[in-house]
Amino acid sequence: MRSFELFLPTRLIYGADCLEKLSSATAAYGRKALVLYGGGSVVRSGLLDRVKAALPGVECVDFAGIEPNPRIESVRRAVKVCRDESVDFIVAVGGGSVLDASKAIAAGFYYDGDAWDLVLDHSKIGRALPIFAVLTLAATGSEYDGAGVITNEATQEKLHLGAPNLFPVASFCDPSVSTTVPAWHTAAGAADIVSHVFEQYFVSETNEVSDGFCEAVLRAVVHNAPKAVADPNDLDARSALMLASSFGCCGLLAVGNSPSPWPCHGIEHEISAFHDVTHGAGLAVITPHWMRYTLNAETAPKFAQLGVNVFGLDPKAGVEANARKAIECTAEFFASIGLPRTLAELKVTDEHFEEMAEHVEKFWYPLANAFRPIDRAGVLEILRASL
Amino acid sequence: MRSFELFLPTRLIYGADCLEKLSSATAAYGRKALVLYGGGSVVRSGLLDRVKAALPGVECVDFAGIEPNPRIESVRRAVKVCRDESVDFIVAVGGGSVLDASKAIAAGFYYDGDAWDLVLDHSKIGRALPIFAVLTLAATGSEYDGAGVITNEATQEKLHLGAPNLFPVASFCDPSVSTTVPAWHTAAGAADIVSHVFEQYFVSETNEVSDGFCEAVLRAVVHNAPKAVADPNDLDARSALMLASSFGCCGLLAVGNSPSPWPCHGIEHEISAFHDVTHGAGLAVITPHWMRYTLNAETAPKFAQLGVNVFGLDPKAGVEANARKAIECTAEFFASIGLPRTLAELKVTDEHFEEMAEHVEKFWYPLANAFRPIDRAGVLEILRASL
Repeated sequence: MRSFELFLPTRLIYGADCLEKLSSATAAYGRKALVLYGGGSVVRSGLLDRVKAALPGVECVDFAGIEPNPRIESVRRAVKVCRDESVDFIVAVGGGSVLDASKAIAAGFYYDGDAWDLVLDHSKIGRALPIFAVLTLAATGSEYDGAGVITNEATQEKLHLGAPNLFPVASFCDPSVSTTVPAWHTAAGAADIVSHVFEQYFVSETNEVSDGFCEAVLRAVVHNAPKAVADPNDLDARSALMLASSFGCCGLLAVGNSPSPWPCHGIEHEISAFHDVTHGAGLAVITPHWMRYTLNAETAPKFAQLGVNVFGLDPKAGVEANARKAIECTAEFFASIGLPRTLAELKVTDEHFEEMAEHVEKFWYPLANAFRPIDRAGVLEILRASL
Repeated sequence: MRSFELFLPTRLIYGADCLEKLSSATAAYGRKALVLYGGGSVVRSGLLDRVKAALPGVECVDFAGIEPNPRIESVRRAVKVCRDESVDFIVAVGGGSVLDASKAIAAGFYYDGDAWDLVLDHSKIGRALPIFAVLTLAATGSEYDGAGVITNEATQEKLHLGAPNLFPVASFCDPSVSTTVPAWHTAAGAADIVSHVFEQYFVSETNEVSDGFCEAVLRAVVHNAPKAVADPNDLDARSALMLASSFGCCGLLAVGNSPSPWPCHGIEHEISAFHDVTHGAGLAVITPHWMRYTLNAETAPKFAQLGVNVFGLDPKAGVEANARKAIECTAEFFASIGLPRTLAELKVTDEHFEEMAEHVEKFWYPLANAFRPIDRAGVLEILRASL
């Protein structure tokens, strides 16, 4: 087992009654909040009003318009508002994009230079505004981690920032809120969760505890995403997905494992940096092709383990057959919840593939450390197979 | 899924190199430490010296002699030393007993009355000294929770105290340290971990994520405890057990579940309050008898699930057969690692059974809420069956 450090300072509060605890959770942090959100869905659903009503005595400064794949321009504008208004903390109401943006804003508030510097160099992240997250969508796990992904359109870069003090102070997760999420985003969120787990599960060294934790989260997603897509009001399915999302990125699933360079995320971030595709949909396309690229005699046992422990394959069928079948089960799972099989369906062409491969090499973790090492040619091979 | 709150503020630091981080972790908390430990094993193994060497510039005040099933008298004496010496924090070096005691001492330091009050009434727990835990034994999970169990010999009570601010600030877990733990305590620790999981797994309402997490921890213990007992230096087995222990009591395994009154712990604490038996050994005796008492048409599916997902039983054998077999697998597992099957082997007679049943009724959580409700007669039935 490898050395590791697990630090999960966020108070994770689940349930239909969770907002009742919002006021007491923020009490020690001040009286003025930036309330951050995206489009109109949290307005239309009434959630925004419920959040503000749960903060009596707190002056709320609205900041709307955080986009999917949140942009550094929005972060910069929000940092300025936080400073102009001297807010004490941030209440981020939304899915991964809003929560991710809140982290860059929280750190940007105390940073003298441009917030993009913090994305390029995490050592520049110092103090941060306290963040309180009200989750609407099961996907990124941003409610229980200290990281965020920000897009810079000017440079066509989509990169992450992260630091332990960017964990929300508390996250408020009411699965019933997610019943208004449309099927497409429900499915894309599920693919994002699956990918988070795969990125930590498919590494050279794991253990029985971390594998079991990963498989528990995967089974919850594989069994419940189709139910939530079929019936948006299936609260049990919504609950399972939200719980699965929260544990996806927090470090719990990788305890004692060898490190992972998160290859599918590295490649997908390039796709959604060049084309404004939904992150989870991009992952659903890339992941089975990454699996096919990665499958060899050395990696087959782990793919077969996925097949047996998550997709219920019969171990008697043997490692080789089960490994291949597990990959097809994964692809079928994504397709079954309405996600694309090809980049063409997402209107992505091969125009920027060379640049993407270059970016992965330049900015992402070294993919030479992936479950099967991937070089620049390998990234191109995966991208081309995904077209 | 039930509402829940998960708050895990401890920095959990695993690895052979973990003590390298002790000094930086304590730096912000002061320059004078109470170093708390039990018998001579941490002295003989050299661990105590290594801990002190890892704290340059910190004045260490030794407090030795914390006993298994730690006594309130020791807590009182240690509180006095902490006050007389004006220590800034506690470094607890040991297994569950030392870590549990550190929590009562930490809270007792700031409490004006007698420390036993805090055990009897958790609402009296206020501020607490910061705790840093150096773990030697995989068992109680005290390194990653905010609770402790303290024995009052004068009143023959063994009760727990708990509060969120009693979580250690950081816990340092080097599995190689546990290679010096004798077979008996290794086995008893494994039984303690299994029982922690059972107490949360066998409740009326669970979910796929919490069940999967529980089963991952159980498999790790069932597969690795025999290896660690057979070969104390099996580092992989020691690592799996330590990791399993850390997640046993922190709340992670019960996310979204209906609450549990921890029946086996309620009964076992009575046994070890009246007779100085090893907690885990008492649990190994009680647990299979509690399972047999609890097995009925309603509870059988969950016992069968344990059989299939942890002991590898064939689901085709059917729920009833697998439920019965899972109970026997559990009993055989405990016996296979050298733990007793009867209270008689622990020199426990039926002399105090009536008092024990009364205490459970009076001081423990209501066992009417157990997986199968247990009344006073039921406690007696389980105790008598265990003789």
